[in-house]
Formats: sequence, structure tokens, C-alpha cells
Amino acid sequence: MDEVRHQRSGRAARAAERQRKGARVGRPYIIRNVPTYDVLGEESLIRIERAADRILAETGIEFRDDPVALDHWKRAGAEVSGVLVKFPPGLLRELLASAPAEFVQHARNPARSVVIGGKSVVFAPAYGSPFVMDLDRGRRFGTLEDFRNFIKLAQASPNFHHSGGTICEPTDIAVNKRHLDMVMAHLTLSDRPFMGSVTAEERAEDSIDMARIVFGRDFVDGNCVILGNVNVNSPLVWDGTMTRSLRAYARANQAAVIVPFILGGAMGPVTNAGAIAQSLAETMAGCALTQLERKGAPVIFGNFLSSMSLRSGSPTFGTPEPAIGSMVIGQLCRRLNLPLRCSGNFTTSKLPDAQAMMEGTMSMLAAVQCGANFILHSAGFLDGLLSMSYEKFMLDADLCGALHSYLDGVRVDDDQLAVDAFAEVGPGNHFFGCSHTMKHYETAFWDSELSDNEPFEKWEAAGSEDAATRANRAWKQRLAEYEAPAMDVAVRDALEDFVGRKKAAVTDMWY
Amino acid sequence: MDEVRHQRSGRAARAAERQRKGARVGRPYIIRNVPTYDVLGEESLIRIERAADRILAETGIEFRDDPVALDHWKRAGAEVSGVLVKFPPGLLRELLASAPAEFVQHARNPARSVVIGGKSVVFAPAYGSPFVMDLDRGRRFGTLEDFRNFIKLAQASPNFHHSGGTICEPTDIAVNKRHLDMVMAHLTLSDRPFMGSVTAEERAEDSIDMARIVFGRDFVDGNCVILGNVNVNSPLVWDGTMTRSLRAYARANQAAVIVPFILGGAMGPVTNAGAIAQSLAETMAGCALTQLERKGAPVIFGNFLSSMSLRSGSPTFGTPEPAIGSMVIGQLCRRLNLPLRCSGNFTTSKLPDAQAMMEGTMSMLAAVQCGANFILHSAGFLDGLLSMSYEKFMLDADLCGALHSYLDGVRVDDDQLAVDAFAEVGPGNHFFGCSHTMKHYETAFWDSELSDNEPFEKWEAAGSEDAATRANRAWKQRLAEYEAPAMDVAVRDALEDFVGRKKAAVTDMWY
Repeated sequence: MDEVRHQRSGRAARAAERQRKGARVGRPYIIRNVPTYDVLGEESLIRIERAADRILAETGIEFRDDPVALDHWKRAGAEVSGVLVKFPPGLLRELLASAPAEFVQHARNPARSVVIGGKSVVFAPAYGSPFVMDLDRGRRFGTLEDFRNFIKLAQASPNFHHSGGTICEPTDIAVNKRHLDMVMAHLTLSDRPFMGSVTAEERAEDSIDMARIVFGRDFVDGNCVILGNVNVNSPLVWDGTMTRSLRAYARANQAAVIVPFILGGAMGPVTNAGAIAQSLAETMAGCALTQLERKGAPVIFGNFLSSMSLRSGSPTFGTPEPAIGSMVIGQLCRRLNLPLRCSGNFTTSKLPDAQAMMEGTMSMLAAVQCGANFILHSAGFLDGLLSMSYEKFMLDADLCGALHSYLDGVRVDDDQLAVDAFAEVGPGNHFFGCSHTMKHYETAFWDSELSDNEPFEKWEAAGSEDAATRANRAWKQRLAEYEAPAMDVAVRDALEDFVGRKKAAVTDMWY
Repeated sequence: MDEVRHQRSGRAARAAERQRKGARVGRPYIIRNVPTYDVLGEESLIRIERAADRILAETGIEFRDDPVALDHWKRAGAEVSGVLVKFPPGLLRELLASAPAEFVQHARNPARSVVIGGKSVVFAPAYGSPFVMDLDRGRRFGTLEDFRNFIKLAQASPNFHHSGGTICEPTDIAVNKRHLDMVMAHLTLSDRPFMGSVTAEERAEDSIDMARIVFGRDFVDGNCVILGNVNVNSPLVWDGTMTRSLRAYARANQAAVIVPFILGGAMGPVTNAGAIAQSLAETMAGCALTQLERKGAPVIFGNFLSSMSLRSGSPTFGTPEPAIGSMVIGQLCRRLNLPLRCSGNFTTSKLPDAQAMMEGTMSMLAAVQCGANFILHSAGFLDGLLSMSYEKFMLDADLCGALHSYLDGVRVDDDQLAVDAFAEVGPGNHFFGCSHTMKHYETAFWDSELSDNEPFEKWEAAGSEDAATRANRAWKQRLAEYEAPAMDVAVRDALEDFVGRKKAAVTDMWY
């Protein structure tokens, strides 16, 4: 009887430990316990900063179709000629001093609010694919159902911290109304933080208005509850659509993510150092503009380096040069004391195959090693971002889980050093049953949901499945088991009312 | 006419640049241009070193079936009781001071000799699988033909620097004669450096004798031309078979690679810090023994951390804890000023699929980031090292190619910063045709041989192949095109004579 009780108590202890582990893996965001991987020394960093300063002062950046932005720049002391803005050295750094080094993005479930900046790491799904893919149906245009499915898959996984934004384009919904359905889906199917629309100023404002319904107008004015990801039209052009959305987010005290997209050799120099200098210049200008719109507004320093095939001129993703270049971007961003978005799980593969995960893993490790705080494109990215893949999403989710353990680093204390275990076990004996192993074995190692670690014969007897096939089964099971987080009925009604009114007010536009 | 000449000259210039690039990718070894990724601070490193010292002094290490080793330890001042050896603090570090921080391993083609240590990085194929796999024939026991095929595939690739050792077990050859055929294959089918046998002292000596035939007895006595990879029987046991082979290599002034194999929770603590401390203790003892056998002999500090499945107890490979633990091993090794072997391209997957390359890439990036100088298991490793895969070999070779570019880091000078290109191109214009792009575009980015970067439609029209299918075609083509490096007929005859005499002298043993 005593033995039974002892066993039970052992089981209970292990269950409790599993619970703690579950809580750990499902934490709202990661606090990194390993340093960033800094690859350049001070002198080289200064050279890149000076090159960026020269680009800003001598070549300048065009701000098209946004007279307010030009006016901001004039008043700030930049040299404005037509749409071309040239920046005296030091101006942008001075403006950036008012942007917060880190901030909280609140989730509607407060337990899932995230810190963005400092040592925090936040994983969000991929963003912006027109197509979706799965092993059963192949490639097709994304729909709202797909969009909702990916939110559910992210919400149901302990390995993400953020619901993301335009996970795929819901192409069955009119272009000018998509943002309403997308924000509605994020707010109702997930209780994590999320991103709004940026494709037009009024869509950005609709997104923010919907957040106000959930969080309250005053709360939103004082706290970040929504992100907007705005892209530079590299090289050295900011389009008005983007800057007006950028200003809408900043004006509402919400965080814009400022992202140049530099495909080396096309939208920027083919050499890494030059692309990085350009990226620094473009991002600093965008970040500074948020501070001119509203001083102190949160903003994220973003980046998207890429390379191209030397044979075909096609873009390539998940290659070594952008990966190592990301480390430099991270160093430069920290010198500006801003939160960082950089890299992600990139690939040009059209399938969730060996290429996809070789490229994806190299790229995603760069993201966490370079010190990115907000990692967009953490999961699902296939075919150079043209497709969102259900199977790749699950594989990437598993990698995100692994990176939780990776970023925990190596803890060094007497217990972790197992000082007493060696005396207990001694030379030539196994550690299987020793008290130190019993204490730690359920939490010591990351436990993959998709990797097959079984003996070959067992794997063969079970059907010789590859990882993509297991991922195919996993996403279906995850969707079947999904449960929506609770939401106040009045809030939901108010959101539906808002979406209904907005949709009724304009006719559908399909481009 | 002038224009034609100009075009020709442009083509010629590009061809020359391609040539240079070929030479770069095919360099004899990599000199890293990025720092190592150091994750622990001084205080934590000292704590691990002290834990290792305590294991060595208080628990000790058994040296079984090797009275000479015990005698070495006694004379060196260790406390020997039966086969158990305890080491006074400081003894091993003192002994290790005579081991070289770096050394040259000579290849029979002097252009392919490698430096092992310092900033050099050397890729060698995987080592030790009983099985081989390919997509056509599935899994089967390895044969001498497979063994020779893998040497040919490595030799024909610009992405390796070393021919490796027991790439797969040639199970169709008697156990006591395999080493003769394996060394013969390395010496004739490759002109890169290689590894000899360690499974018995006389086999180690045969391997070294064959090297003496090729390099000359005096040269071998003064220079490293062969490596022998010896494993600790963790925890804390050195078997006589291994220490006698270790001593055979050291005695001949050749480099032993000293490798604990610690599967956390089985052959060592389940916690990373404890496994690392144990590994440090075991490796220091093995490295020091080489110095007692022959002071100044080259030796490589080796490591093989692993984890296990918490559900099944199966070993797992390519997981995050050993990856981040490798960074710590690298730091500890550099404090001993020894060349490092650590990590590799590990996986438990049974197929060259998404799991294989996710695990492999995480693990292989750890190898290069932790500062490993000699990276065994760079290619082919599948199913927890039970199988050598033809397709995975090609995929891993491609990753090794990518890592050449990765380790080149980011160069920062006026040319790389493209300072003049911005003035030339200006905002909103493409860099495609600018002079800076034309100058660099053929060498700027790593050019994968296996990744598909084509548009989806083109990929689909070409048959919708996955990476494993492309790898399957690639290894067949590579084998068909293989050409053996030239060898002096007299040397070859002498090798054949040696192998013939050795084989005739004993009967076959099959275990």
C-alpha cells in the first residue's frame, strides 16, 4: 500500500512537472537566456553607420504621395526638394531617441500580453501569401476559411506568442473589406496579440477602431494593442500608402513595424554590407517618421534581407548571406536602442521537404541569434512567401518549440552540474535510474511533437512516414480539437456591428 | 566588332570570376571570418571546470585492459587503484600544455592538406553507420562498394575538405580485414586527408603503416598524415581497445580524436551542464594520455553530446540542448588551447526529409558556431547514425557549401558598402544593371546545387520534384562523372602488396 502510494505520488509529481513544463513551453513570450551572436566589431559597425548616414545625406529618400510626411520632415530640419528628402547627419538618431526601447503589446487575454524589445522573443506566423498549400489539395488561392484555420492552428499551439497579421490573403473577400474580416478573425479566434491592416490609411484606422472596441478607447490611447507592418519600397522610396498607414498607427500610439525589403542586386546592392547600410538608412527614416507623428509612439526596427539566384535572377530565401547579415542588423539595431524584427523561417521550396527545413532552420536560427524581438514569418512560409503551407506551418511550429529550449541556454548551478550524481553512479554505470535523472528527466529535453525518434523497425512497421505526412495529420487533428477562447458577447456584438456597417457603406473592390 | 570583343571580354571576365569562385568554394579548408558564438560567461565556465576537476579527483575514471596506460598515469602522479585512476587537480591541464593548439594534417595531394585548430574549419563525412540507404533500394547493410561510393562522392564535391574514416561499415568484408580495404580506398580514391582504424591496436598500426607507404616513414614521424577517432565508454570508462589505439596514433605522432559519447540521462547526467562537465573530464583524460605516450603529439578535443526522448528513452539527435551545449564545449576547449571536434549534421529521421534537415541544420550550425575545427559527420548521417544515406549526403554537401559563405561573414569596405552605387542608382531604381552589381553578381551569393528557386509554375512543369528526388539524381550523376586522382604506380603497388600480405596472414573474422 505504501509502495502504491509512493508510485502515485511519483506519478503525481511527474504530472505536476509536466504541467510546469507545459506552462513553460506555453509561456506568453520567451526571455532569452543566451546572448546575441555578434559578428562584427565596433569599427565595422561604425563604417556601416557612416555609409547609411551618407546615403541619407547625399542620395536621400523619396516620400511619395504624402504631403504631411514631407511637412514633418521640413519642420524637423531635413532638406526637402519635391518628394526627395535629405537628412543632415545626426537628425534621425536624435528623433529616434524618443522611441521606447521596449514596450508591452497587450493581448485581450492579459496573460498573453507580450513584451517587445530587450531580451524578449515573440514568434508570429508568416504574413502575406496569396496562395495556400497542403499535401491533399496542392496550391490554391487563399480564402477566409484558410485564414481562419491558420489563426486557429497558431492559437492552439503553445509554441507561438502572437497571432500575426495577414497570414494569407483571403482572396474570396473584396480587397477593400478583407481587413475587417481578418481583424475580426484575430480578435475572436485568438486571444493573443495581433496585427492590423496597412494597405490603406482607412483600413489601418478601421483596424485600430476594432481594437478600441475590444480594449477601450482610452486604454488604446495609452497602450499598444495592435501592430502594423509597413514596407519600404526599396531602394530609398517610401510610398504614401505606407507612410499614411505608418502615421495612422503612430498617431494612435500603436506600433508600426518598419521593414525594407531588399533583394540584393535588385532593390539594393548585391553585397551584404551595402544592403545592410541601405536597410539601416531606410528603417531609421521610417522609425523617425513615427516619432514626428507622435513622439514616444512605439515602433519596431524591421528588416528583410534577401539574396538572389546568380543563374536565374530569382529571389532566394533561407540562404547563408542574409542569415549572417541578420546578425549585423541586430547589432546596428541595438545601437539605436529599438526593438527588432529580423529574419524568420524563409525558403523558396515549394514543398515541406528537406530544402524547406534546411533553409528555414538556417534562417530562423539567424532570427533568434541576431536578437530579433518580434519574429514575423516564424511558421508556414513556402515558395518565397507566395504560399502558406499547412504542413510547413506545423513543422515550423515544432522548430519554434525547439527554439524555446535553445534560447533557455545552459544553466550552470550545482543541481544542473549533477555534482552528487557522479558519486552516486560512478564509472561504467548508467544514469537511467539515478535520483538526479528521475528528478529531471521529464523536463530536461525539448519534446518534439513531429520528429520520429523511434527505432527504424518500429517506424517502418508504422508506415514509413516522412515528416510532411505526420505534419499533414497533425494540422487536421489540431483543427478538429480547436476551441475558441471565450469572448464577452457584448464586445463580439459590437465588433460585428462595426464590421457590418463598414461593409455596407461601400461597394466591393476587387483590386 | 569592338562590341563583340567587349562582350567576349565581359564573358571572359565572368568566367574568370567563376573560376575564382570555384577555387574559393573548393578551398582546402575554411578560415572562419566570423567569431565563435560564446554563450556562457567566465564565472559559469569556471564552475563547469571545477565540476570536471571534482569528477576527476573524487570519482575518477577507469582505464580497463591497458596496463601501459595505468603505468603512464602512475608515473605522471595520478592516484591509481586497480583500474580506477583519480587525478589531482591541475595534473591534466599541465600535461595538456604540450599538445599543439593547431597542426597540419597532410594530404597526399599537398594542395589539399588542412590546418586543424585556430580559425580553420574542416568538413568530413559521417562515420560509422552499419547501414546505407537510398531512395531506390531503401535500407541495407553497407558494403565496400558503398564505402567506395561515398569516398568518391566526397572527393568529387568542392564542399568537403577531408575524406573521413569509416563512412559506412563495409559489412561484406571480414571484420579483421576491413580496415585494410577502407584505408586503401581513402588513399586511392581520394587525395584529401583521411582517418584510419581504431577497432584494434594492430589495425591502427596497419593504418599508420599504409600511410607510411604513401608519405614515407620519416615524414610520418615528423608530421600528421592520419587521424584516429577514439571513443570514451562513457560514463568515466576508457576501454583498453580504445586507449591502445589512442596510444598507437600518439606513438606515431599522429592525431587521436578523443570523443566521449554522452547520451544525457543514460551515459551521463540528463542536464546539459552536468553532461558537459563529464565530457570535459573524459576528454581531458584522453587527450592527456596522448601526451604521456608521446609528448607533443597532435590531438583533437572531441565531443558528442546528445539527448533522449522523454517518452520512449530513445536517443534523439539534432535537438536544441546539444546544439546550445556545443557552444559551451567550444568555449571550454579554447580555454585548453586545443583543436576541437564537436557536433555535426545529426538527425534521427529515417528519410532525407524535413525532419532530417531541420535537425541536421540546427546541429551543423552549432558545429560551425561553436568553433569546431574538425567536423566529423558533416554529411550523410541518418537514423541516429545507423544509416548513411546517399540523398542526405548530397543535401548535407549542399549545406556544407552554404556554410562556406556563412563563415565568410560580412566584409565591410568601401567596395562592399557600395558607396558609389547609391549615387549611380538613386531612389526608386533597380540595381540590376549598375556597375557595382555587374562587378559582383556572379560571386556575391552562394549558389546551391540542389535548392529549387524557380517560379512555382516552372517547378511544377519540370515535375514537382522534392529536394530528396533531386539529390537522388545528383549522387548518381556525381558517381558517373567521378574521376580518381592520379597516384604513382609504385606506391599503389606497394599498398596492394601490403594489403595482400596482411590479408593472407590471418583468417577471416566476422565479429
